[in-house]
Amino acid sequence: MSMYELLTTCGHARRGRLTTPHGVVETPVFMPVGTQGTVKGLTPRQLTELDGGTQGPQIILGNTYHLMLRPGTETVSALGGLHRMAGWDRAILTDSGGYQVYSLKDISRITEEGVRFRSHIDGSYNDLGPESAIAIQEALGSDIMMAFDECPPAGDGIPRRKVMAAMERTHRWARRCIDARTREDNALFGIVQGGVDRDLRAMSAEAITDLPFDGFAIGGLSVGESRNRMWETAEFTAALLPESHPRYLMGVGTPEDLLACVGYGVDMFDCVMPTRNARNARVFTATGDLNLRNAKHTRDPGPIDPECGCYTCQNFSRGYLRHLDKAKEILFSTLTTFHNLYFYLNLMAAARRHIEAGDYYAWVADVMGRRGTGATPPAGPAGPPGPG
Amino acid sequence: MSMYELLTTCGHARRGRLTTPHGVVETPVFMPVGTQGTVKGLTPRQLTELDGGTQGPQIILGNTYHLMLRPGTETVSALGGLHRMAGWDRAILTDSGGYQVYSLKDISRITEEGVRFRSHIDGSYNDLGPESAIAIQEALGSDIMMAFDECPPAGDGIPRRKVMAAMERTHRWARRCIDARTREDNALFGIVQGGVDRDLRAMSAEAITDLPFDGFAIGGLSVGESRNRMWETAEFTAALLPESHPRYLMGVGTPEDLLACVGYGVDMFDCVMPTRNARNARVFTATGDLNLRNAKHTRDPGPIDPECGCYTCQNFSRGYLRHLDKAKEILFSTLTTFHNLYFYLNLMAAARRHIEAGDYYAWVADVMGRRGTGATPPAGPAGPPGPG
Repeated sequence: MSMYELLTTCGHARRGRLTTPHGVVETPVFMPVGTQGTVKGLTPRQLTELDGGTQGPQIILGNTYHLMLRPGTETVSALGGLHRMAGWDRAILTDSGGYQVYSLKDISRITEEGVRFRSHIDGSYNDLGPESAIAIQEALGSDIMMAFDECPPAGDGIPRRKVMAAMERTHRWARRCIDARTREDNALFGIVQGGVDRDLRAMSAEAITDLPFDGFAIGGLSVGESRNRMWETAEFTAALLPESHPRYLMGVGTPEDLLACVGYGVDMFDCVMPTRNARNARVFTATGDLNLRNAKHTRDPGPIDPECGCYTCQNFSRGYLRHLDKAKEILFSTLTTFHNLYFYLNLMAAARRHIEAGDYYAWVADVMGRRGTGATPPAGPAGPPGPG
Repeated sequence: MSMYELLTTCGHARRGRLTTPHGVVETPVFMPVGTQGTVKGLTPRQLTELDGGTQGPQIILGNTYHLMLRPGTETVSALGGLHRMAGWDRAILTDSGGYQVYSLKDISRITEEGVRFRSHIDGSYNDLGPESAIAIQEALGSDIMMAFDECPPAGDGIPRRKVMAAMERTHRWARRCIDARTREDNALFGIVQGGVDRDLRAMSAEAITDLPFDGFAIGGLSVGESRNRMWETAEFTAALLPESHPRYLMGVGTPEDLLACVGYGVDMFDCVMPTRNARNARVFTATGDLNLRNAKHTRDPGPIDPECGCYTCQNFSRGYLRHLDKAKEILFSTLTTFHNLYFYLNLMAAARRHIEAGDYYAWVADVMGRRGTGATPPAGPAGPPGPG
């Protein structure tokens, strides 16, 4: 039985629902990143207070690479699994660790068996491959596990044969990930690779969707290619994935990226941007993004975003936030993270409502226009959006 | 009319109530320290969720020295005053800045007018004296202002004439602080100095309580003297203060210090210990204090304190907290601060109940015995506590 239910569509945009062992997830959905067993800066209680029409995120992401090294898989198990350890009783998706391992490329050795790498924490040698990536994710207690893949860099300078070789190995490893499963209560998603090459993406989509995965991810994007390239590839690839399964665009992205790719039929996203930018004083608003370190905010008694209903905007001024940042108070990160995650969750809640209402593309054009980033809104399948 | 109402006593211990422009404060009370306009690591909402029988602190402390330098008094005013800026609608006590300025002693010049000092932030020269300390505290919107005093070091090596000269200047400045007031809606406390010398303390108490202050503080303790010396001096000095006014022991202390000094008749305390220790992984429990960095906690699924009802102890294990510390996650500071402040507030709520119940000294002996720090419980006025 599929974990995904497609409720309605507006053009290519899909309004759906995922069922996991830790609750239902309304899609399209943005998943906050909780790399080391915590969404940086917020307690689980604060996460559930984010609201934005959702009472907080229904799913967050954990990073297998980080958790296997610290505190270590056995420690997470001893502490009751990732949910119990982190005090989070909603759904968790874990990546396979592949992406992080490949970002250590100078100290990795890749064979058909898997990857040997050195820990960024203590320099110790560790191995990760399809079987161990599944075993670790099962031990963590992940609701949605990701297949272990090989992620080549994307971009114009990368030889096609390298991208193809990584893709083909990803396909072989995908099969081994499925065979390595020992639990039936959680889900496993396959990952389509192929860089920004349409032929390779088509080959990869065919190979991966041929396997009995519970959902399909578009990997290997947002790794250096241009925004246009990324959007084109996401649009092309999403259209190759089955209607019956959830579609997850990994590691993406800006508010514009999310709105565009929902318009291409993507259901799930994760990105460190709202949380990382928050800690660096960069905050999102309905009329464009702000840097709170700008001196003009020093005595500004207004909130980050007058249109925002979050706890931070309801209670604190730009001037106070700037003071907290200059004074290096950790409350700064908490309050800006609260706001940025609220912005993302609220945006996705609005996207779900506008898909249901049938005016998704017109709404996106309006949101993008007000934010003023110069992004071109996605055209609906019937051509460019009408007057609204 | 006095801001203080004495409700009942148990021996010297006092159960009372302070009325401020931002609400009622039940005493004895511990005031969390919010140096730079935030209790480090917690949102105001989290503070009000601390509970411990109190629904969070009814009063917190702000530091004039820090706030006048950053963001600056005028910026705080532009942002609506300290309450509005920090999103805190309960009471705030501000110190006068004197203590911090004197801790910069190598770069201070003291005259009868006041103190010239260099900012620890940018090295700029600044002046602070009785008149400006009151003006700044009024501008911040403090509910309880503190007189500007001269704090000499305490301890065995300090010449008596130095302690006496600082005390006498404190008395002259006290009068000037009262004369500098322009508001009538808030309170001003005088500070008794005199080091650990009983004669000087008696002279200072007489001089300061002769002035029309709204409350009286015992200053110049917890600055290097032994615990026994501090307790003796607090006991001696508290007994010299009028029954009709609140008594505040500044900068104190450990749980044992608080319990002992409540037993000597002190009503109010502040200290960075619960918040600072929390960030350094040192947490308080009913059976003694813990260092969460100890490797033995690595896979411990139990809470910091099985007897504790705080959010942290109800949801997170020692093993998880240790992981957060090692991973340098700011959530660590938030969760341990939450616990330590809960411990302090809960302890003071229990102290209030036991004063009301008339068994304060027996209860203190029991609490101190279980914590095992070797402190000698205060004897009630009728001699050592009975069998309980």
